[in-house]
Amino acid sequence: MLICRTINEIREFVRQVRERGRTIGLVPTMGYFHEGHLSLMREAKKACAAAVVSIFVNPLQFGPQEDFHQYPRDFERDRKMAEETGVDAIFYPSVEEMYPAGFSTHVEVGGLTECLCGLSRPGHFRGVATVVAKLLNIVLPDKAFFGWKDAQQALVIRRMVRDLNMPVEIVTVPVVREPDGLAMSSRNVYLDPRERTAARVLFRSLQIAERAAAGGERDVARLQKAVRQEIASEPLVQIEYVEIRALPGLEPISRLQGPALLALAVRIGKTRLIDNTVLNPEGDQLAFDHV
Amino acid sequence: MLICRTINEIREFVRQVRERGRTIGLVPTMGYFHEGHLSLMREAKKACAAAVVSIFVNPLQFGPQEDFHQYPRDFERDRKMAEETGVDAIFYPSVEEMYPAGFSTHVEVGGLTECLCGLSRPGHFRGVATVVAKLLNIVLPDKAFFGWKDAQQALVIRRMVRDLNMPVEIVTVPVVREPDGLAMSSRNVYLDPRERTAARVLFRSLQIAERAAAGGERDVARLQKAVRQEIASEPLVQIEYVEIRALPGLEPISRLQGPALLALAVRIGKTRLIDNTVLNPEGDQLAFDHV
Repeated sequence: MLICRTINEIREFVRQVRERGRTIGLVPTMGYFHEGHLSLMREAKKACAAAVVSIFVNPLQFGPQEDFHQYPRDFERDRKMAEETGVDAIFYPSVEEMYPAGFSTHVEVGGLTECLCGLSRPGHFRGVATVVAKLLNIVLPDKAFFGWKDAQQALVIRRMVRDLNMPVEIVTVPVVREPDGLAMSSRNVYLDPRERTAARVLFRSLQIAERAAAGGERDVARLQKAVRQEIASEPLVQIEYVEIRALPGLEPISRLQGPALLALAVRIGKTRLIDNTVLNPEGDQLAFDHV
Repeated sequence: MLICRTINEIREFVRQVRERGRTIGLVPTMGYFHEGHLSLMREAKKACAAAVVSIFVNPLQFGPQEDFHQYPRDFERDRKMAEETGVDAIFYPSVEEMYPAGFSTHVEVGGLTECLCGLSRPGHFRGVATVVAKLLNIVLPDKAFFGWKDAQQALVIRRMVRDLNMPVEIVTVPVVREPDGLAMSSRNVYLDPRERTAARVLFRSLQIAERAAAGGERDVARLQKAVRQEIASEPLVQIEYVEIRALPGLEPISRLQGPALLALAVRIGKTRLIDNTVLNPEGDQLAFDHV
C-alpha cells in the first residue's frame, strides 16, 4: 500500500493505474477510522480495481468554534486498518498541500445546504464541496464512496457532481452501527461512559419513527414529535434539530409520500452527533437507490 | 466538423479522440466569432490534435439589466468560420442542457473578482467560473484557450483551475485588434458609426500609458490620470473604471514594479466595452508568461 503525501505522488499512482486500463475508487475521509470507513473501503475494492482512501481533516469545513484542532487523528492506526481492507493507496496531504497561499476558490451548492446541518454549521457544506471537488480532480476516480451517516453531505456531493458535470459516479453506503445501534462516528470517542449510554436514545428514537411510519403514520409533525419526545427522555441529550424532509431535494414536507429523510442532530455534553434514517412509506426502494 | 448539441454527444466525441491517444484543446466562447476567437481556435489546433469550440451564451454571467437577450448570435456564420480554422467539433448546447431544473451549484473565486469588472458586474465571474468548470468537466481537454482581451476572466479561470486542481492547462492568447486599434469584441456590432470612431480612444489611451511607462513613469496615479484624460477627450465615451493593478493577483499598487495590468471599462452609448494592456517596467516577459 502506497502512502502519498503530495498531489504529484497520488497523481503519478493514478496515472500508472490508468495506464493499465484499470478503474479507480476513491474514499474521501477525515481519518480516525471505524467500521463505517472500512465498509466504504471494502465497497471501493469490490467495485473498482484500485482503491484510494484520502485522509484529510479539512479545516474549511469546520466553523471557528468547532473541533478542528481536537478532531481525533491517528495515522498509524488508520494506515494499518486501511491496509487490511486491501486499499491500494492512501492520499494523506498536509493543509498547505491542499490550500497553498493564495487559495481563494470555493464550490457552493445551494438549496440542499440551506437546512439541517447547513443551518447549524454555516460554511460547512461549502468546505465539504470544495475539498471533495479538489479530491475528485486530483484522483479522477471512476467512483467515489460516501457514507449515508452523513446523508445531507452525500446529497450535496451528488448535486455538485451532477451540476458541474464531474465525470464520476457517487456511491452511497449504508450507516454502520455499534451493536447497541449508535451510528459509528469518529466523534464517538469524545463521549464519556454516561454520555455513551445516553447516546443510545438516538437510534431508539429513529426506530420509533420507523415503526410509526410502517404502521401507517404519515403526519410529519407527529412523527417528528415522537422522535423529540423519545430523545427528551434522556436529560444528557440536547436536541439541535429533528426534521423529516423529502428526498433527494430535502424540501420541507407535512406528509410522508415518497421517500423522506428523518435526520437529527444533538449535543451530548460538548459532543455534536448526527444520525438519520430513510422513511419510505411506499417501500419504494428504487427511489432511494436513485437518491 | 461535428456539431454536438448534447453533453452525451460531445463526451462520445471526446471519448473517441482519447481512445486514439490524441490530445484535446477546448476554446470556450459565446459565439458571434471575430478574429479574436479564430486566433484561439488556431492556437488550439496548433497545440492539440483535436480542437473543440463551445458556443454558449451563458445566462449565468449576465446581470438582470445586461444584454443577455440582445447578445449577437449567428450559428451558421460561426459554424463556417470555425470550420475554416480546422476545428474538429462544436459543442453548442441549449440553456436547458447546461442548466437543467434543480441546478444549484456555483464556483466562486474570491480576491481576484472583487475589483474591476467584478465590482461593476456582480455575479459575473461566478457565472463565468461555473460555466467554465462545467465545460472543462464535460470536455476534459488537455489545454483550454482564453483571450487576454478578458484579462481578469483569464486570471480568474487560472486561479480556479489551480485552486480546484483541475487537470487542464490554461493558455492565454493576446488581444486581437482592428486595424485602428479597437480590441475585437462581439459587442462592437452594437456601435453606430460615430460611436465606432469614438471607440478608437481606448487603444490610444492605453498607448499613452505604455509610452509613459516605457519612458520611466512609475507613478500609478499619474499613469491612470493620463489614460482618463485621453478618454475624457471623447464626449461619447463614459469611463466606468481605469485601473492599474499588480499581476497576477490584481492587488492595488501605487508604483509600477513588477508586471501590472492597466485595465479599463467604458460605456459608449448603451455599449459596454473593456480593454487592457500589460505594463511591464522591467520588461520581465517571463513573469507575464507565467501569469
